[in-house]
Amino acid sequence: MKQWKHAFKLDPNKYLSEEGIRAVCESGTDAVIVGGSDGVTFDNVWELFEKIEPYDVPLVLEVSDMEAVVPGFDYYFVPSVLNSKDKTWVLDMQHQAMKTYGDMVEEQLIVSEGYCIVNEEAKAFQKTNCFPVTEEDILAYARLVEHLFPLPIFYLEYSGKMGDEALIRKVSEELSRTQFFYGGGIQSKEEAEALEGFVDTMVVGNIIYEDLETALQTVPGSKKG
Amino acid sequence: MKQWKHAFKLDPNKYLSEEGIRAVCESGTDAVIVGGSDGVTFDNVWELFEKIEPYDVPLVLEVSDMEAVVPGFDYYFVPSVLNSKDKTWVLDMQHQAMKTYGDMVEEQLIVSEGYCIVNEEAKAFQKTNCFPVTEEDILAYARLVEHLFPLPIFYLEYSGKMGDEALIRKVSEELSRTQFFYGGGIQSKEEAEALEGFVDTMVVGNIIYEDLETALQTVPGSKKG
Repeated sequence: MKQWKHAFKLDPNKYLSEEGIRAVCESGTDAVIVGGSDGVTFDNVWELFEKIEPYDVPLVLEVSDMEAVVPGFDYYFVPSVLNSKDKTWVLDMQHQAMKTYGDMVEEQLIVSEGYCIVNEEAKAFQKTNCFPVTEEDILAYARLVEHLFPLPIFYLEYSGKMGDEALIRKVSEELSRTQFFYGGGIQSKEEAEALEGFVDTMVVGNIIYEDLETALQTVPGSKKG
Repeated sequence: MKQWKHAFKLDPNKYLSEEGIRAVCESGTDAVIVGGSDGVTFDNVWELFEKIEPYDVPLVLEVSDMEAVVPGFDYYFVPSVLNSKDKTWVLDMQHQAMKTYGDMVEEQLIVSEGYCIVNEEAKAFQKTNCFPVTEEDILAYARLVEHLFPLPIFYLEYSGKMGDEALIRKVSEELSRTQFFYGGGIQSKEEAEALEGFVDTMVVGNIIYEDLETALQTVPGSKKG
């Protein structure tokens, strides 16, 4: 997981053709993450899992709802939304997971992510009752996760729009032990390449559903484009 | 810090004579923690710090109020109250600390504690707006801190009453990487000895102010009593 440079995120509540799924899974990406902000159910996660399971790529379920935990994934990422106003999204779901899936944690299948959701227009921002963050806030969250709450992943989520490159660079400077995930608004090979130097793992989502060919070009070393 | 078996906790809002302070600091305890649930101010922390600073024992300030952070301690423990209902007590104070004291974190002076406050009658329970916990809750918090939110310390706080020994033993079985602190209701050498086998660090507080001689006997290897 530490080596992942690129991941695609598939939304179980969105439609992608069998061919599209094949292209994503065989793109050379390092992982396929299943997750979404709304309409995620056990049934649609299961349906998507059955389609991606045959491919030889690490599969991650990003757990946003304990009711939609489908067995069989390689990893279960449990987000902790650092800039949520509610403790529910920070710790309570993780606590619940420990009660229900305590055994899995010893097999290191469950991985916690420290999320900072920046884009106030994003569904995830509203759903998890986030407060707006300044640059100072973001850097302090990164430092918090690097040192005081040593989670394996810091996930900077712009969700739908591209983040400020100078800020992303500053965040990367705060993180050495922590794996730095970036998601949001990556729409081209050039944007992906610009992030490569200072983001550990970039996550490409929406563009898959809007322009699959361009999405595939974001994979590092992609021959297309 | 990993080797500490015993610590005394001094409350800056309670009076202890100079002789009492000397006895505590020279007792053979592994550390002196300064902290309290209410009435903690910069002034009374400073006053207590000046009295204990001359002694050759590690000094810890347990930060419950960012306004009362006095410089000069060997460690700053920042509690994160896992069973609080409010995110304020879980993450926000830590986030604030990263903004104000970001540099100190790199010198590893700041240490986060995952607190679980059990005794519903305790001031700390009420002040941090905790919800009551079952045995299952407590064990799941321990597991959470051991695996998913890997804090250096899990602090089981009974605050004023002695915890259930069977439960304390079960908690200790969940923790191997994490340092297990126990506090609350230790009133005798025998109670302290009973905990030694499965608690990493026991914290003795209230009894200092009620019966200093007995308090001193809780130090492992104490010749008194």
